[in-house]
Amino acid sequence: MYDGPVQDLIDELGRLPGIGPKSAQRIAFWLLDQPAEDVERLAQALIEVKQKVRFCEICFNVTDQDVCRICRDPKRDASSICVVEESKDVVAIERTREFRGRYHVLGGSISPIAGRGPGDLHIAELVRRLSDAAITEVILATNPNLEGEATATYLSRLLGQTPGIRITRLASGLPVGADLEYADEVTLGRAFSGRRYVD
Amino acid sequence: MYDGPVQDLIDELGRLPGIGPKSAQRIAFWLLDQPAEDVERLAQALIEVKQKVRFCEICFNVTDQDVCRICRDPKRDASSICVVEESKDVVAIERTREFRGRYHVLGGSISPIAGRGPGDLHIAELVRRLSDAAITEVILATNPNLEGEATATYLSRLLGQTPGIRITRLASGLPVGADLEYADEVTLGRAFSGRRYVD
Repeated sequence: MYDGPVQDLIDELGRLPGIGPKSAQRIAFWLLDQPAEDVERLAQALIEVKQKVRFCEICFNVTDQDVCRICRDPKRDASSICVVEESKDVVAIERTREFRGRYHVLGGSISPIAGRGPGDLHIAELVRRLSDAAITEVILATNPNLEGEATATYLSRLLGQTPGIRITRLASGLPVGADLEYADEVTLGRAFSGRRYVD
Repeated sequence: MYDGPVQDLIDELGRLPGIGPKSAQRIAFWLLDQPAEDVERLAQALIEVKQKVRFCEICFNVTDQDVCRICRDPKRDASSICVVEESKDVVAIERTREFRGRYHVLGGSISPIAGRGPGDLHIAELVRRLSDAAITEVILATNPNLEGEATATYLSRLLGQTPGIRITRLASGLPVGADLEYADEVTLGRAFSGRRYVD
């Protein structure tokens, strides 16, 4: 046990996900050695993230404005909406530079175990967005796991009949750079069933 | 890249030791989901640690007072001083409940590579403390590595001639619960040279 403030900081840091007591102690002592301005900048970033961060009124991505950067950008293709579970997924997809459309962040996946049903996700808002005639494609980019698949299946049934809108799903298959030998059977099976003609 | 405050927080968290960009992102989004009070408490702990934490005037342990809890405690044995490199070491030794004396925190070890000589450590203050006739033992508890050993050797030469004061060193040997087979040769050698009669 340390005197007052050091122990308080170790306790608070130890509550963060993935930070054990040893790491918390190491970070606390490292911070003690840093210039006060640097530590205050971290404290300020923490306060601001809670004060300023909101969810985009259109797509529910995190933003510090009413409408996020992507929804505001007139150069983004308004005909295509990529549906993801979380804001993190938006960043992952943006990094690929493969997609120039817009997003819709569900805020999670359907998970009976976690008690999350369709009503807990931003699905009603997605349906409302689709009444915009400009939209011609909805890409379901939920995670390729049990809950993500269930969510995609639910959405494809719900939206499948919308006139003028194609529903697509990200391709499943072997990750680039992987060894066939080490691929799990489900992934390998998907790679087979989704095989394509070589052009 | 996230909009403003989220990215700022990820950047600040990513500067902490042992926190990579993925962990920083995970912690930032976790914090976004927490109640504002919890996040403010962490921010407050950060600010307070820089504002309030000082070094004990006597032993240079971290404290929020002029003199630390251990130096203030009249029940601690004033005849024995345990010399350690860092405040963290004080906590580690306190956890053993084996030592009831007081401490002296050097603030590091002698390291020519890192450009730290004896003058950069609180050695002059230690020498001054030893003029107190109550002190009869100085335990050198620096780390059992190259720099810690060099520091202990330097201190034992410097203090060895002080009348009325015994200089001791923590025992080196096999860690409790270790396998002899897997002990490194230096540790095993120390265990041999430091062997004791069975009472």
